[in-house]
Amino acid sequence: MNDPLPRIDAPLTPDGLEAVLREVGRRRYHDRHPFHRRLHGGGCTRAEVQAWALNRYLYQAAIPRKDATILARMEDPALRRAWRQRIIDHDGEAEGEGGIARWLHLTDALGLNRALVVSGRAALPATHFAVEAYVQFCATRPLLDAIASSLTELFSPRVIGERVSGMLAHYDFVDDRALAYFTARPPQAERDVIFALDHVRRHATTVETQRAVVEALIFKTGVLWAQLDALWHGYVTGQLPPGAWTPDDEGVWT
Amino acid sequence: MNDPLPRIDAPLTPDGLEAVLREVGRRRYHDRHPFHRRLHGGGCTRAEVQAWALNRYLYQAAIPRKDATILARMEDPALRRAWRQRIIDHDGEAEGEGGIARWLHLTDALGLNRALVVSGRAALPATHFAVEAYVQFCATRPLLDAIASSLTELFSPRVIGERVSGMLAHYDFVDDRALAYFTARPPQAERDVIFALDHVRRHATTVETQRAVVEALIFKTGVLWAQLDALWHGYVTGQLPPGAWTPDDEGVWT
Repeated sequence: MNDPLPRIDAPLTPDGLEAVLREVGRRRYHDRHPFHRRLHGGGCTRAEVQAWALNRYLYQAAIPRKDATILARMEDPALRRAWRQRIIDHDGEAEGEGGIARWLHLTDALGLNRALVVSGRAALPATHFAVEAYVQFCATRPLLDAIASSLTELFSPRVIGERVSGMLAHYDFVDDRALAYFTARPPQAERDVIFALDHVRRHATTVETQRAVVEALIFKTGVLWAQLDALWHGYVTGQLPPGAWTPDDEGVWT
Repeated sequence: MNDPLPRIDAPLTPDGLEAVLREVGRRRYHDRHPFHRRLHGGGCTRAEVQAWALNRYLYQAAIPRKDATILARMEDPALRRAWRQRIIDHDGEAEGEGGIARWLHLTDALGLNRALVVSGRAALPATHFAVEAYVQFCATRPLLDAIASSLTELFSPRVIGERVSGMLAHYDFVDDRALAYFTARPPQAERDVIFALDHVRRHATTVETQRAVVEALIFKTGVLWAQLDALWHGYVTGQLPPGAWTPDDEGVWT
């Protein structure tokens, strides 16, 4: 590992643990990825923004399934009451509402065929693999690790703020409605992450569980990073897998 | 899709189905990937061969788990008797035997720390995601699709032949013992794929099942391709994810 984190050899205080978790974000969160910098700095072509939005849709669409696998293993009604709000936020109260629907405002604005975006068939295989790895992680690992893997949201409000302002400034094909997801999301993410961080601080009190929650967060940063790696490799350098969708495909891009 | 396969609108004959499956291989099998050509053509650095071998180990090590999920859903003892041989081939009859052990001869010869290779910690996140996606696919999809996903072996004897001769010719750090996997594997793969192809030809007789087995094989080619994409992006272009292992890491490369 070219940048090892401090090894946990004795139980950390809650503040000490939080400091390590924040260090994971500082080193590994995908705001450091070249694709992110290119995207929010206005350096992406329209096709690259389209590819990003339709691949990232897969991740957005999987989040409620991920949260449902977590909810399904929570024994405590109070914990479930808090966690279920995440599913409500993403799926909305009715058709056309919620985070997933707002993401489709973005893909609509980018001229992407909605049925194709929703089908997932235009997304790269590597996107599918990373997203489903996250769902599986949360379905099969200890509940505390699954909760800890959501802590990338500690770092997302800054990114979302940068992304909205960067995109509005640089891309004339992006307007406020297209970016509704990014304006609605930060207060939800902040509420969610305060809850999850408090839970992790209170329950990860041994060396083993502290190591595990740090590993869970590292795993999650890998899920996000790998998605941008695949976009860069495919759409920036142009080394697309055989059969991958391209901006010229009929029916994909309108 | 920039290279669509023929759409199946009426049931194909077994030969017609086999032709479509072989066309999937011709278009999408990873012998067409630049990393494969670089590897067997002798263009890889030692570090790139090391990275390939330690990442590919993850795939090799997962195959018996994949085959066990398939075996676990086979109702027919005759089918199970045929399929279980795959697990025996990979795991061997005793410690130090079998395909996985032979793969470790290669990583040994490349100077890689065996404990680290086996731990999987030096492999890229994208490798883990692709490999586990394959295991999950075989655990959750219809049995016929899971069997069809193994049909990439239709195309592997040629690749393995090329790889062995290419590597022996070009890399002085590779010897016969290091390549034992590749000399033992082709007759096993040929026996396995004759069985699996016959099964798919006999059981995929409707439009729906024929489409599904073609999709399964496409999925699998994506699993293999994505692994080489990640190697290329990380180790050829040098855009490694934060925390990824490098040839300079202490304890990884001896």
